[in-house]
Amino acid sequence: MESHINLEQLFQLAILEDLGPAGIKGDITSKAIAEDMVGKARIIAKMDCCISGLMVAKDFYRFLDPGIEFKLSKPDGSIAKPGEELAMVSGPLRYLLAGERIALNFIMHLSGIATYTNRFVEAIKAYPGYILDTRKTTPGLRLLEKEAVMHGKGKNHRLGLFDAVLIKDNHRELFGSIPAAVSKMREINPPLTAVEVEVESFAELEEAIAAGADMIMLDNMDIQPMREAVELCRQKDDSIKIEASGGVTLDTVEKIAATGVDYISIGAITHSAPAVDISMEVVSTKAT
Amino acid sequence: MESHINLEQLFQLAILEDLGPAGIKGDITSKAIAEDMVGKARIIAKMDCCISGLMVAKDFYRFLDPGIEFKLSKPDGSIAKPGEELAMVSGPLRYLLAGERIALNFIMHLSGIATYTNRFVEAIKAYPGYILDTRKTTPGLRLLEKEAVMHGKGKNHRLGLFDAVLIKDNHRELFGSIPAAVSKMREINPPLTAVEVEVESFAELEEAIAAGADMIMLDNMDIQPMREAVELCRQKDDSIKIEASGGVTLDTVEKIAATGVDYISIGAITHSAPAVDISMEVVSTKAT
Amino acid sequence: MESHINLEQLFQLAILEDLGPAGIKGDITSKAIAEDMVGKARIIAKMDCCISGLMVAKDFYRFLDPGIEFKLSKPDGSIAKPGEELAMVSGPLRYLLAGERIALNFIMHLSGIATYTNRFVEAIKAYPGYILDTRKTTPGLRLLEKEAVMHGKGKNHRLGLFDAVLIKDNHRELFGSIPAAVSKMREINPPLTAVEVEVESFAELEEAIAAGADMIMLDNMDIQPMREAVELCRQKDDSIKIEASGGVTLDTVEKIAATGVDYISIGAITHSAPAVDISMEVVSTKAT
Amino acid sequence: MESHINLEQLFQLAILEDLGPAGIKGDITSKAIAEDMVGKARIIAKMDCCISGLMVAKDFYRFLDPGIEFKLSKPDGSIAKPGEELAMVSGPLRYLLAGERIALNFIMHLSGIATYTNRFVEAIKAYPGYILDTRKTTPGLRLLEKEAVMHGKGKNHRLGLFDAVLIKDNHRELFGSIPAAVSKMREINPPLTAVEVEVESFAELEEAIAAGADMIMLDNMDIQPMREAVELCRQKDDSIKIEASGGVTLDTVEKIAATGVDYISIGAITHSAPAVDISMEVVSTKAT
Amino acid sequence: MESHINLEQLFQLAILEDLGPAGIKGDITSKAIAEDMVGKARIIAKMDCCISGLMVAKDFYRFLDPGIEFKLSKPDGSIAKPGEELAMVSGPLRYLLAGERIALNFIMHLSGIATYTNRFVEAIKAYPGYILDTRKTTPGLRLLEKEAVMHGKGKNHRLGLFDAVLIKDNHRELFGSIPAAVSKMREINPPLTAVEVEVESFAELEEAIAAGADMIMLDNMDIQPMREAVELCRQKDDSIKIEASGGVTLDTVEKIAATGVDYISIGAITHSAPAVDISMEVVSTKAT
Amino acid sequence: MESHINLEQLFQLAILEDLGPAGIKGDITSKAIAEDMVGKARIIAKMDCCISGLMVAKDFYRFLDPGIEFKLSKPDGSIAKPGEELAMVSGPLRYLLAGERIALNFIMHLSGIATYTNRFVEAIKAYPGYILDTRKTTPGLRLLEKEAVMHGKGKNHRLGLFDAVLIKDNHRELFGSIPAAVSKMREINPPLTAVEVEVESFAELEEAIAAGADMIMLDNMDIQPMREAVELCRQKDDSIKIEASGGVTLDTVEKIAATGVDYISIGAITHSAPAVDISMEVVSTKAT
Repeated sequence: MESHINLEQLFQLAILEDLGPAGIKGDITSKAIAEDMVGKARIIAKMDCCISGLMVAKDFYRFLDPGIEFKLSKPDGSIAKPGEELAMVSGPLRYLLAGERIALNFIMHLSGIATYTNRFVEAIKAYPGYILDTRKTTPGLRLLEKEAVMHGKGKNHRLGLFDAVLIKDNHRELFGSIPAAVSKMREINPPLTAVEVEVESFAELEEAIAAGADMIMLDNMDIQPMREAVELCRQKDDSIKIEASGGVTLDTVEKIAATGVDYISIGAITHSAPAVDISMEVVSTKAT
Repeated sequence: MESHINLEQLFQLAILEDLGPAGIKGDITSKAIAEDMVGKARIIAKMDCCISGLMVAKDFYRFLDPGIEFKLSKPDGSIAKPGEELAMVSGPLRYLLAGERIALNFIMHLSGIATYTNRFVEAIKAYPGYILDTRKTTPGLRLLEKEAVMHGKGKNHRLGLFDAVLIKDNHRELFGSIPAAVSKMREINPPLTAVEVEVESFAELEEAIAAGADMIMLDNMDIQPMREAVELCRQKDDSIKIEASGGVTLDTVEKIAATGVDYISIGAITHSAPAVDISMEVVSTKAT
Repeated sequence: MESHINLEQLFQLAILEDLGPAGIKGDITSKAIAEDMVGKARIIAKMDCCISGLMVAKDFYRFLDPGIEFKLSKPDGSIAKPGEELAMVSGPLRYLLAGERIALNFIMHLSGIATYTNRFVEAIKAYPGYILDTRKTTPGLRLLEKEAVMHGKGKNHRLGLFDAVLIKDNHRELFGSIPAAVSKMREINPPLTAVEVEVESFAELEEAIAAGADMIMLDNMDIQPMREAVELCRQKDDSIKIEASGGVTLDTVEKIAATGVDYISIGAITHSAPAVDISMEVVSTKAT
Repeated sequence: MESHINLEQLFQLAILEDLGPAGIKGDITSKAIAEDMVGKARIIAKMDCCISGLMVAKDFYRFLDPGIEFKLSKPDGSIAKPGEELAMVSGPLRYLLAGERIALNFIMHLSGIATYTNRFVEAIKAYPGYILDTRKTTPGLRLLEKEAVMHGKGKNHRLGLFDAVLIKDNHRELFGSIPAAVSKMREINPPLTAVEVEVESFAELEEAIAAGADMIMLDNMDIQPMREAVELCRQKDDSIKIEASGGVTLDTVEKIAATGVDYISIGAITHSAPAVDISMEVVSTKAT
Repeated sequence: MESHINLEQLFQLAILEDLGPAGIKGDITSKAIAEDMVGKARIIAKMDCCISGLMVAKDFYRFLDPGIEFKLSKPDGSIAKPGEELAMVSGPLRYLLAGERIALNFIMHLSGIATYTNRFVEAIKAYPGYILDTRKTTPGLRLLEKEAVMHGKGKNHRLGLFDAVLIKDNHRELFGSIPAAVSKMREINPPLTAVEVEVESFAELEEAIAAGADMIMLDNMDIQPMREAVELCRQKDDSIKIEASGGVTLDTVEKIAATGVDYISIGAITHSAPAVDISMEVVSTKAT
Repeated sequence: MESHINLEQLFQLAILEDLGPAGIKGDITSKAIAEDMVGKARIIAKMDCCISGLMVAKDFYRFLDPGIEFKLSKPDGSIAKPGEELAMVSGPLRYLLAGERIALNFIMHLSGIATYTNRFVEAIKAYPGYILDTRKTTPGLRLLEKEAVMHGKGKNHRLGLFDAVLIKDNHRELFGSIPAAVSKMREINPPLTAVEVEVESFAELEEAIAAGADMIMLDNMDIQPMREAVELCRQKDDSIKIEASGGVTLDTVEKIAATGVDYISIGAITHSAPAVDISMEVVSTKAT
């Protein structure tokens, strides 16, 4: 299994909600199929998309039954056309059918995220900046969704609250000022902890630069001030990374990239990506 | 806690991915806040929406820290306008901030589903039929998503593979015919198990009626044949429930409802609903 | 493993209570056996019985140690005579002995249920009705006990509170009347949910029929009124299934079957079945 | 909670199998009851019995919902008559009804064991010996069943394989002789570990005495040799405890006790005790 | 509970290994104490020490039984003298005694770490550098041990492999060179991820500086080259943090600090700290 | 896996704290290594020691990835010299590196205990008594630490509170006297439960002998009275085992052994053993 602890728990939840307390015997339609029947099925894209979730589906089927063989026809991160085969699954027919919906739900959801991310990435390909995800993910699926973002050629922001510091307005107020907050963060955290500061004005920006922030988030700035902020920042300390954030859409992303920011973070790529249509077709069955 | 077993496991996964192995101390920005600080915050809708997930967020905060008080300003299932307050949260400030993102992620995602469902429901309000969800849900969140569908005034289909029989083409072939499949299902399952049959043609429809199906799913039928199918079915046995399924959109749903089907099932209401924008504002903090 | 989630947890509880916190090393008598010793043992019926639990025992031994081979000599659901071999177990001797008692406890208990069920089934074999189990099962073992009932040729009622509706007197009172209760149940539940109504009088029976119940339970009725109830029900709507329930014994079951009911439900087949005597004999051991 | 770890896991299994993945909302009949309804119910014995399982039921209801109040009307271990009230339960009506069956299943099963044990205890009350349980218990419920034995005035044997040594024929053969086995056990185990030896003949009995066994089990001996064995043993070392074991019934137990053995162990008191009939009656309901 | 997920699992393991499968009833000596007995006990230091683990012990007792009150007499991180009272515990006597050993084991072990850390901290108090812990901790207790280090006035290094990059010789070889390794790390990780490089020579040191490392670990260097390395590094880029590592003892730590390094990391403070002697004295008991 | 239940939970905690929520992908330095790289590494002793923890490390690596092969070069319990190879590990390089620290932490800690124990054992090798461990172990690791004591040729005392009775001063007071306490313990516990009594004076010693204790602990006695206590005890009943306890050091242990006690229990061997220095060296890597 790729990710030990979490993924198995998520699989258990998924099996429980779809198959109920009886596990594999809970597929009350398929349980009438003879135990010695085996089958082969193809997973197929029904629309243009960037694929994610195949490795998760493979892990899921292995968890459901080690006797299932799941072969990727193309790797996660690939672009697929309608009708293209993504994977071939074979093994005990009851397990194959019992796991179909869960496996597809993973692939449809994660490919939706990869595909939507990729549209933003394509939109700014003329610029050096990167698309970044956020913590606005589906509870319990963050790590998978962040991988889907990478499959769509986006980049990941911090995983959670635990692996980097981001000083927001609440913290600023609680600690008195941006410099006070930054220095508190340096004091209580390990030396390898990076610190980002969210700013909404030029005054705050200057404070953040002076406080020695490793990265600065320009929150909901208009294009013109954003351009000036980037310029100011580069001038003062060009080792500081700059992130633009707030309500970015496919219509606005290119203009933002043109300001020269290093990163553009977009909640919608994880929380509002429409699912990709993917289906599974049984191609053969036989008794063994 | 409303739903004992599952929900706690999902909360644990969500806490683990956002806060890391150190739990509440894993919010490395907020851990510098004095332990005796308490705060009060408002959860606010940023756009028109149908609300869902408030009770889940309340349960989540109770799980994170029993000292947090979470008061709903309006119940799940309500319609909200931009700027409206949805809930008031108060308690230890570190817990309040550490749980903010997870709580909002639940509400944004589930309100997205309720809101999107409600648009379909509104579109067919002139007809007696109902909007029905499917098993195309996010793995691990099905029960919450199905509640969100009900908050949007949709109806739930079976929960999973375990609580009702749905005979699809694969089963039909494996058991030889629709009547053979139905009778096999009656034989192996408890007497209170209902049986639905998916049909794609009039020949199959007649077979399903004759076999005594409790419910029939018209799969991907065009409007005209669908209307005839409904008529035929009502004529032969008007106790059979009829479901239309397959690629339903806001553009097509009304015409489908007009055919007289009892239920229209739509995967998109759970797998492709864009999130609703919801935010949390700290309104006051103080030391105790 | 046949049933993923539950069964492993039950096995863990069983191992914990018998082997203690040290797991396999907790068998403080057998831990002195050299690790390279292997053994072979036969599981044998000591009395006439209908067998159940062999697949569970096989799953249990696989869980305890994948190196154990467990071969069924006859399938679950078979009739066995005293002295007949039921299975052959072989592998590392310490694991074989450490798991013996738990494996036998499963087989003895579940074969007890299958055997007792089968006596009721035999008693009514001249009639078309079926023996049905109830929810009066041992906490934590319901799914295994319901399989044992099927091994004894009985049928299963609903699995639990979640997969079908049964309206009892409490619900009737709370919702005002049988028709009100039935219609409430239809309204709040998915369309594929079947509804049974428990009745104690002819007045209630008529209400239940009129309300469109899918199945009716005649609770604790005497034979004569039961016969009349069946007649009345068949006359009004012969698609309604009829269940007799309440204090059924081997002495009374045939008379009840003779009334023409479809199902006779009996709590005693799961809660009061005496265990069948089964033993395990080590037939050979050797160092490897 | 009285027994932390195990009991909660068993409760989870019981809730899962009866309520399904949706937890309390899985009682699809009672979920229509208004959330503010509260109720009061009496748990009543329907036959003469020795009660066990009330504390377990109390813990179970507390686990299901801390808002439920469960008051024992008489303690576990009491003798009850038909119609006697055993406990009064009150609180949120939906939880009260959703937990009814599981709570009763515990009490019926455990009171069955206490009652059956007590019949054996009564049968030998003229003698100084004690009735002892065995490891032939229901997997997952051993600790509860052993408490039920004590409620019926029986005594507990070792809990499992981990808290005392019992040398059986297999071990004897593997270690070469009874003395070799006993001395191996003394060598590898902590000094506070007691050692019992199972014997089937006088030769073995003498070996066991000489080897310094703390307790000796006379396995399947007839009454006359058993009497002689007791005599021999007392003569040689009267600090050794003597246990009789094997196929003991209510018909034979008194004669066995008369031989002077210290303990009579009986598998049937846990594996074949018929359930006691116990019911729950809702006595009032009201909205709050 | 301070740290939700981990700590409860560790408590469960600790309870299981000390109390066995029966939980609180597993204290077979104290279970004879009447359930209504309550007691009061003092936790007392038996030697000079720096205290840690009191909050963990408080959480542990709350987990064991919410009825136990645990009041710290001085906070974690305090210096205590022999005979000083550290905490006062009161509540149900059986729980108080059943939890005593586990609570003390936590306090003795963690205070050992805090005390040993503090000796190193005191040894270098004339210098600006800090004592840092490592990943050489007891499996399962890392977060508690890292807190103990902070109680002893040391600082924490990264928590694990997941929250910062440390490039060792293995990685250097696999990626070809230090600059190649650093640039690979920047490419695949989120922008807020800091990168440390372990160096063993001046050639490596220069490479690491040129590659833009955020922090550099001088591995097992002698004092004189270490002093030169610090000087070189400060000259080239004084924003780089410098860590000395490898076999540091109380005899050598001051000289290392005198070289001007920012951090000195010491495995022994977590893996070889002798326990502090702490005891618990029951001061009163009474029936309630 | 040798010890099913506990060990896997401890491994999960260890993986979580070192690798974070992303599991194996949480090693953010090594995740850049190509998935098809395999490696071979040697585990090597860096100082004289008695080895323990190799089987645990093997189980750990198997848990982390079944594709890792771990071959012991010498068994647990062996004496090793600096530079000696203890094990050879080979398999997927990312897993090999990701598990290195945890595996070493187990071996260093447990070998520390075995080595320290062995020094005490060597110190008394001229005497027949044994070194015994105590319940002063690291929470969550007791069973492993007790095995390490055996690897160092020490003996184990009871595992916990559940497998033997030890009457301390608190119990003595609560039950009124030593004889009252012993007889209470005999009454409430299974016949195979052994009883030890802690005594601090000759008066108590005589009471304990008279009460029929199976073993007596001389608590914190000086050498001369200890010698007399042993003599007295042997005289009265030479089947009683005698344990010396309290503040035993390498300086005092031989004199204690010379008094003739059967067992000397020492908390320090588990709670204060310094870790042994062990390292892992990658000896080759290649793509497959």
